[in-house]
Amino acid sequence: MAGNSFGDLFRISTFGESHGKAIGVIIDGCPSNITIDEEFIQSELDKRKPGQSRITTQRKESDTAQILSGVFEGKSTGTPIAIVIPNEDQRSKDYTHIKDIFRPSHADFTYQMKYGIRDYRGGGRSSARETAARVAAGAVAKSFLQQFGIEIFAHVSGVGTIEAPNLDTKDLKALLELRESNIARCADPATANEMVEFIDSVRKAGDTVGGRISAVVRHVPVGLGEPVFDKLHADLAKAMMSINAVHGFEYGSGFAGSELRGSEHNDIFVADDHDLNQVHTHTNFSGGIQGGISNGMDITFKVAFKPVATIMRDQETVDIHGNPAIASGKGRHDPCVVSRAVIIVEAMAALVIADHLLKHQSYKHAAR
Amino acid sequence: MAGNSFGDLFRISTFGESHGKAIGVIIDGCPSNITIDEEFIQSELDKRKPGQSRITTQRKESDTAQILSGVFEGKSTGTPIAIVIPNEDQRSKDYTHIKDIFRPSHADFTYQMKYGIRDYRGGGRSSARETAARVAAGAVAKSFLQQFGIEIFAHVSGVGTIEAPNLDTKDLKALLELRESNIARCADPATANEMVEFIDSVRKAGDTVGGRISAVVRHVPVGLGEPVFDKLHADLAKAMMSINAVHGFEYGSGFAGSELRGSEHNDIFVADDHDLNQVHTHTNFSGGIQGGISNGMDITFKVAFKPVATIMRDQETVDIHGNPAIASGKGRHDPCVVSRAVIIVEAMAALVIADHLLKHQSYKHAAR
Amino acid sequence: MAGNSFGDLFRISTFGESHGKAIGVIIDGCPSNITIDEEFIQSELDKRKPGQSRITTQRKESDTAQILSGVFEGKSTGTPIAIVIPNEDQRSKDYTHIKDIFRPSHADFTYQMKYGIRDYRGGGRSSARETAARVAAGAVAKSFLQQFGIEIFAHVSGVGTIEAPNLDTKDLKALLELRESNIARCADPATANEMVEFIDSVRKAGDTVGGRISAVVRHVPVGLGEPVFDKLHADLAKAMMSINAVHGFEYGSGFAGSELRGSEHNDIFVADDHDLNQVHTHTNFSGGIQGGISNGMDITFKVAFKPVATIMRDQETVDIHGNPAIASGKGRHDPCVVSRAVIIVEAMAALVIADHLLKHQSYKHAAR
Amino acid sequence: MAGNSFGDLFRISTFGESHGKAIGVIIDGCPSNITIDEEFIQSELDKRKPGQSRITTQRKESDTAQILSGVFEGKSTGTPIAIVIPNEDQRSKDYTHIKDIFRPSHADFTYQMKYGIRDYRGGGRSSARETAARVAAGAVAKSFLQQFGIEIFAHVSGVGTIEAPNLDTKDLKALLELRESNIARCADPATANEMVEFIDSVRKAGDTVGGRISAVVRHVPVGLGEPVFDKLHADLAKAMMSINAVHGFEYGSGFAGSELRGSEHNDIFVADDHDLNQVHTHTNFSGGIQGGISNGMDITFKVAFKPVATIMRDQETVDIHGNPAIASGKGRHDPCVVSRAVIIVEAMAALVIADHLLKHQSYKHAAR
Repeated sequence: MAGNSFGDLFRISTFGESHGKAIGVIIDGCPSNITIDEEFIQSELDKRKPGQSRITTQRKESDTAQILSGVFEGKSTGTPIAIVIPNEDQRSKDYTHIKDIFRPSHADFTYQMKYGIRDYRGGGRSSARETAARVAAGAVAKSFLQQFGIEIFAHVSGVGTIEAPNLDTKDLKALLELRESNIARCADPATANEMVEFIDSVRKAGDTVGGRISAVVRHVPVGLGEPVFDKLHADLAKAMMSINAVHGFEYGSGFAGSELRGSEHNDIFVADDHDLNQVHTHTNFSGGIQGGISNGMDITFKVAFKPVATIMRDQETVDIHGNPAIASGKGRHDPCVVSRAVIIVEAMAALVIADHLLKHQSYKHAAR
Repeated sequence: MAGNSFGDLFRISTFGESHGKAIGVIIDGCPSNITIDEEFIQSELDKRKPGQSRITTQRKESDTAQILSGVFEGKSTGTPIAIVIPNEDQRSKDYTHIKDIFRPSHADFTYQMKYGIRDYRGGGRSSARETAARVAAGAVAKSFLQQFGIEIFAHVSGVGTIEAPNLDTKDLKALLELRESNIARCADPATANEMVEFIDSVRKAGDTVGGRISAVVRHVPVGLGEPVFDKLHADLAKAMMSINAVHGFEYGSGFAGSELRGSEHNDIFVADDHDLNQVHTHTNFSGGIQGGISNGMDITFKVAFKPVATIMRDQETVDIHGNPAIASGKGRHDPCVVSRAVIIVEAMAALVIADHLLKHQSYKHAAR
Repeated sequence: MAGNSFGDLFRISTFGESHGKAIGVIIDGCPSNITIDEEFIQSELDKRKPGQSRITTQRKESDTAQILSGVFEGKSTGTPIAIVIPNEDQRSKDYTHIKDIFRPSHADFTYQMKYGIRDYRGGGRSSARETAARVAAGAVAKSFLQQFGIEIFAHVSGVGTIEAPNLDTKDLKALLELRESNIARCADPATANEMVEFIDSVRKAGDTVGGRISAVVRHVPVGLGEPVFDKLHADLAKAMMSINAVHGFEYGSGFAGSELRGSEHNDIFVADDHDLNQVHTHTNFSGGIQGGISNGMDITFKVAFKPVATIMRDQETVDIHGNPAIASGKGRHDPCVVSRAVIIVEAMAALVIADHLLKHQSYKHAAR
Repeated sequence: MAGNSFGDLFRISTFGESHGKAIGVIIDGCPSNITIDEEFIQSELDKRKPGQSRITTQRKESDTAQILSGVFEGKSTGTPIAIVIPNEDQRSKDYTHIKDIFRPSHADFTYQMKYGIRDYRGGGRSSARETAARVAAGAVAKSFLQQFGIEIFAHVSGVGTIEAPNLDTKDLKALLELRESNIARCADPATANEMVEFIDSVRKAGDTVGGRISAVVRHVPVGLGEPVFDKLHADLAKAMMSINAVHGFEYGSGFAGSELRGSEHNDIFVADDHDLNQVHTHTNFSGGIQGGISNGMDITFKVAFKPVATIMRDQETVDIHGNPAIASGKGRHDPCVVSRAVIIVEAMAALVIADHLLKHQSYKHAAR
């Protein structure tokens, strides 16, 4: 109930603070006999780690994952997979200046009021550093989903008011290559350049900016998602909204769809060769989910991130005694989080799909 | 896991199909000694029930709630409160024409593929009729929250491309009166008129249209919400996305906030009288939630509904054998759901807040 | 968390008080396409219902189950199955004498202190009447398990100091016939006679007596049970201990096994025809469960019930103001509950096995 | 669902195999501002660790606990407390002889059949080594409960057919001293001597023996426990039955109570000074729990452990191909587990009480 776990059958529990000894995760419910490749986990973590480019924080962490359990001779055994990522670059002294004050739009105030105590160093548990544990777990989930041919892809589709054009998502491998070819992690190179320029200018101004990530999940079997409350898109929404700084989620036609008429918005079913297993829809306003259950089409969604709260400027605020104070802009921070958050969005999507896949398998095979 | 329950400590489980004997709900975890007023529950249900105006479906249901348990001499006893709402106007024959076909953008196809069987009458379990059970439960949650002075208000802020201006939310009672003064359930009377006209024209065209609901929760104590995964807004997102036809959710600054800079977006803390318990923020881009935890400011969010899938026109589709078929537009349906959905949004918000309130009480009082 | 639900994937939530309008249950997670036979549910309820013989309470309840949802044309649809059992013979006036006092060894005191309010009529929610809802749900679980050939059998193996001999459990149908041939529900006819005589004499003395129920589950597939905490026998223990009046649980060799040596107690594996799927053990001290996981042998366990607390005598006690009082023995009560509890034990066992079967199916088919 | 977590509000998740890199636990939901004393955790672990006396296994593990998160300046912060215990003495080669065979009455067979793969070294996840993680978590739970004056005490009350007399449990500190004065961990010194002699003789015979642990929890507030399914004793039962080798559980009057009459068994209420808060019972057949809810009296229960399966003798068995094989008795094992299990029983009891305390606090303070 304390909210540090996610998923039911494929379940993760994360721990750790920004400047404690380590962060980590227990993955419980990963089926046995899945190949667990430490190098793949590491390569995923490398996409999230700080210090990877000039538009990310300069904090240096190697973010090296250590698997403590649940894997035997390279395969999952069905027992909990514990992964620990030691914290290295803990310049805790950088944070003594925030020990007694509440930084604007951070979690300092709410943590202090809720718990009566907080590890103020780097934001403690409220730091997005916790998401490294999610990425490690997401890599395991992806390894599991790979067996079913399920592919997940996310990229930065918007920064500030810059918006990338819609992409053709048929070849996700090609898109992945395009995305990884630039530090903005936008799969449209022209827009990517624009984004990098803009983020860099924002960084130089000591400011930050928000952005948007668009994602697609392909080859999801028909039938995933549990009505009524655990609709597939409801769980995706919760997963995404649980990522630090996220303020909005939409799937399929999203907010724009709410302006349309039914006659424009309905997705017409088509069956090739009179085969129920070939049924698909012409359009995909439904975003691959109908009645909360996957229909076999691409699952599409978008996530909105607010601008990073830490700016390199002095801001008025209040201290822990209720007195006026100044929060000064120090430390090493991201001017825009979306480039590093792409892999977190993918990880959370993988975890949601893996959980629902297990749920679906349970019922699918139960009745004969 | 089958997804028919919501909440952890204040938990509801709903049951029932559109054309079965009854729908209903068990509310488990409602604290004892709360006054449970059947008339209040009924008045909430009346705001959702079909047939209440010319811009809603003409299906007639009295939606009369019967409390079967958990209430003794007008007070909750701490045991499960079961509420049953019998189905009355079950013109099941209206639905024989959809027995063998998959209506576009409905859940017919996914239910059939997931379960291998479906109660096709009125959409069965996938019908929004299920939400009546949520409204009844929400009324109980509201009764509980009332003790803490917590107020919840939602209204229709958008229909199609019509958008209501932002409201001053200081006097929710006045807004409620304005909202209930029109059948669109928009608290801005001028916009409401426009909406009603528009929905009526859409209805006459045999078409449907989407819309948006904006909500505010006031007087929420500081400290509700459980980082990391069960952030207050993440649970609100899941709650809202679980409502039929919802395609998008945002809180605080939302999608628009992702276009801003940190220097514009940060909410500056202010403490009146050097009192921590008086801390508030000038602006409220955070939507009353920071780090997933309520900060005492108004909690604000917006929900996007797609257009109703059932239109009064013939549409191409596929039947349960995989052959081409025509879905004809029959039956009694809503041209736009948002006016009836306002009370569902409030109910789900009440359930989320009640659940988090209990969680918070648990920890708050545990440590001494 | 309020404890009115049991199971994870095959999950039941019960509601209702002894003298409220109705008791009932929602069964969530029952796979689709299972034949749900109302007559079978009723026949199970009839084995638990009061007034069935001279050694049970004379309260009359027809205990007629009504299915409200989740079943379409005789088959489960995968949606929640709600079953309601109206209360009929509510002589609430019988209970005004206990309104203000705490009956010894009943739950009056603890409910009052926990909730600050209680429905005192017939014990309210603490009444074993709640178990009728479990029996209805158990009948559904049995219908599901039947598809896998899983059989469950329980009988009264002890009343007071009377103990039935161990039974050969190879032919459960024959044992069932023997059990149902007597009102004690002991499958050993000679012991049954002794028990009936004894219970009758206890009843005439205005007293009550405890007893024991032994159970066996056959043809459980290898692999059910989730280490570490959700061991199959741990969940069976919780299920049984949750039944009113149960004070003890043991499986396999049980308490007696704790007096043995390893060399006596170990179950030697044997494989017929060099076939892993034929592996079994000579002895079965393990009670069909090793490491918390079913090994394919018979699952055996025993449950101890304390004597019924309501006796037909005056007892000293305390009233709700903390003053000395007399609890007088009135009303209609069982002199010994085990004969009616046999079917409850079977129901709870069925629910545990069904839940673990779904869990196991999930993982079994997930990895390829 | 994979069963590696226990508790709802005060929740632990354990990981690790006998011969992997480490075992450990995440404690989620521990309230903030609790003093977490590493030395106390270590002293608890020392009571469970192997090699502590001649009647335990000679495997040497220092079992040094490392806190990775959730504690700041000696206090819990309300975030997950991760504790890791590295494995040191991993003589994995000792286990190559069991790689391909199923040891009698071990979990080798069931794990292999369930998962299709197993870490055979030392039993892998099925090893009781996992319980060290529980003991560490139990120490944290005890630290929390200490604030409420709740005391937990367990000791070895039986080994083989040797049975300790009932103890006066008024002074638990004195009993603890008596218990820790001997290697059997029986608080009755005379019986302890007998037990040690007996276990030693069993050990020399290359055999093993079962035993029993009795426990008491004092000063539990009235009101803990959630009817209907999550009765306090039902959760205690599950907790105890989840400990390796446990085959039986009883509370209060237990199995013996099922032989009694109501007139003998009922606990008469007494109120001193006409004060509801002083209500207690003369006798305590109820074991401190009525209707599943604590009544303020001592909570008493007993746990039965089967004899250790690993004996120093050759035993017939089957290999992983289904062929006959010999399991030879090698390695370092306990002749009797109960002396080391005493602290595990206490830990699990502490976790159950802590979880229910949080649940109760939640409701208690919710209604006004």
